[in-house]
Amino acid sequence: MELELQQAIEVLERTPSTLNSLLRDLSESWLVQNEGPETWSPRDIVGHLIHAENSDWIPRAQIILEHGDERAFEPFDRFAMFEKFTGKSIGELLDTFGRMRAESLRELRLMNLTPALLEKRGRHPEFGVVTLSQLLATWVVHDLGHLAQVTRVMAKQYREAVGPWTAYLPVLGR
Amino acid sequence: MELELQQAIEVLERTPSTLNSLLRDLSESWLVQNEGPETWSPRDIVGHLIHAENSDWIPRAQIILEHGDERAFEPFDRFAMFEKFTGKSIGELLDTFGRMRAESLRELRLMNLTPALLEKRGRHPEFGVVTLSQLLATWVVHDLGHLAQVTRVMAKQYREAVGPWTAYLPVLGR
Repeated sequence: MELELQQAIEVLERTPSTLNSLLRDLSESWLVQNEGPETWSPRDIVGHLIHAENSDWIPRAQIILEHGDERAFEPFDRFAMFEKFTGKSIGELLDTFGRMRAESLRELRLMNLTPALLEKRGRHPEFGVVTLSQLLATWVVHDLGHLAQVTRVMAKQYREAVGPWTAYLPVLGR
Repeated sequence: MELELQQAIEVLERTPSTLNSLLRDLSESWLVQNEGPETWSPRDIVGHLIHAENSDWIPRAQIILEHGDERAFEPFDRFAMFEKFTGKSIGELLDTFGRMRAESLRELRLMNLTPALLEKRGRHPEFGVVTLSQLLATWVVHDLGHLAQVTRVMAKQYREAVGPWTAYLPVLGR
């Protein structure tokens, strides 16, 4: 599929409610366990999404609209959430993410992006030239990839509990 | 984690609302595309969950409680949904799944499963002896694995649209 703005927004606006449905009021043991050393728990992932919302998507779109490919984006720290969100409950994190996503989508709509603007070029600090359309598609895939990760991490907590059924559950081997 | 009944139910009761949040009223193109030949679309996956609800979890739990390991479960047809659900809208499928899951959980609670009953043995047609606890853990992992699949299938529709960012999006390679 090519990126079509309204279809991308359909996914972006669903992510907070999907995470709410999955994680709010869930037992702590589902929320804090991960896939092993150097991997993330569902709670870490929500923290990461908040941090990305703050410093990645809309700020980078604005840099493209204002500076084109003459100014590179700020590099994005993918591990910042480990310091920033210690001690916050999952409810607080989900509330924060929901508020920030609503604000991001308000700003996105105010950009009135035309097909021509979607092809506008920016500069990634590592990849070089990218387009606004690629940035927005990445936003959507980033959401969906982290939703897949949350559910995979939760599934793996029952790796042993399923006994021989593990053979029919490919998610446990990913 | 070992299976703890209340924590398992927490996940099982969230799956219909999570799928609702992700899929209801979404554009058709997100719903019908898959990962290539012999793979499933988000719509197929909801059909599969309905079919599993009908013929897998509670029926098998009842066989264990009534017959122990003296009677093997009926084999489960993992592809039955392709015939059964043609022509149904995603809204109808989600409504059906939500109703069936609520009924399954009502029946599960009525079983008043004690730790001793959870260790009761049944017979899988292929694996041989399994326990009720393993069956319920499998139900949870099956839900979570298919949620991971729905989001992964959606993410892959933007495989080309993300351009060079594909390098940072592992979900596109799974």
